[in-house]
Amino acid sequence: MSSWPVTRCLSATDFSAPIDDRWFEDYTPGFVAEYGSVPVSETDIIEFARSFDPQPMHVDPEMAAASRFGGLIAAGWHSAVIAGRMYVDHYLTHVAAIASPGIDEVRWPAPTRPGDVLRLRTTTLEARRSRSKPDRGLVRTQWEAIKDDGTVAMSCVAMNLIALRDPS
Amino acid sequence: MSSWPVTRCLSATDFSAPIDDRWFEDYTPGFVAEYGSVPVSETDIIEFARSFDPQPMHVDPEMAAASRFGGLIAAGWHSAVIAGRMYVDHYLTHVAAIASPGIDEVRWPAPTRPGDVLRLRTTTLEARRSRSKPDRGLVRTQWEAIKDDGTVAMSCVAMNLIALRDPS
Repeated sequence: MSSWPVTRCLSATDFSAPIDDRWFEDYTPGFVAEYGSVPVSETDIIEFARSFDPQPMHVDPEMAAASRFGGLIAAGWHSAVIAGRMYVDHYLTHVAAIASPGIDEVRWPAPTRPGDVLRLRTTTLEARRSRSKPDRGLVRTQWEAIKDDGTVAMSCVAMNLIALRDPS
Repeated sequence: MSSWPVTRCLSATDFSAPIDDRWFEDYTPGFVAEYGSVPVSETDIIEFARSFDPQPMHVDPEMAAASRFGGLIAAGWHSAVIAGRMYVDHYLTHVAAIASPGIDEVRWPAPTRPGDVLRLRTTTLEARRSRSKPDRGLVRTQWEAIKDDGTVAMSCVAMNLIALRDPS
């Protein structure tokens, strides 16, 4: 993507801790926020898929139109990484992220098409202190990449190890 | 990635069915193959991460060198999509793929660094006919993105709905 749009928090409440002073203690199970938005063009879809998933429904508008998809659809990984960018820009601490143990349950309930605008809804599912390493905790967060018509294009559950502000 | 390398099957045996005549019946649980290889440069890592995961350890060589990572590491999504490209080019049928219900258990056991060369090992875990739609079946495949030193950089379990050659 050559130029990334300016995105922001779209919901009424965001974290009280700014992203550069955000620690494990600031992640609260049940917290929901939305961030966005990122428009997805035909050019974006084709460019990403040419590198990473060059199947006809992602790179060839004519073949895609004649297929059961009825037109070009974004590669699954594409909506995932767009959501990931919003997650990193707005949700994930910029000072205390130690590592990501992994991502579970990546799903694509609806295709992303040219002209769709994606926002990210985060739901903090769990925030659990590590027993073996008391300076950190595991945060599990559901991502939902939501289109402007309200349908969910992609969802997953991301895990992050995050340092405590006050491990004592 | 501006130019994608030519990749091929690296293991002694591949599918007997060519990729443009490959159907559900050709996926056999227990089948293992390797495909590759894709070198990953510092430029590739920075370019991908600038778009989709611009954390310092992915985009800033100096800050990465001073961090606990000891140098630049690829975004997690980056090794995933590189593996995905090899999967689409060599493993996933080009004529019978209906949809991907999702991907589970994405993990990053080791970081991908500039100069690493990734290959994809596929292990067909399950091939199960659909009861509700007898023209297709679900194939579950483990991906392992393996570095030239033999360590696994990324793994996941991908699901694909694949049409039968002979549904009768």
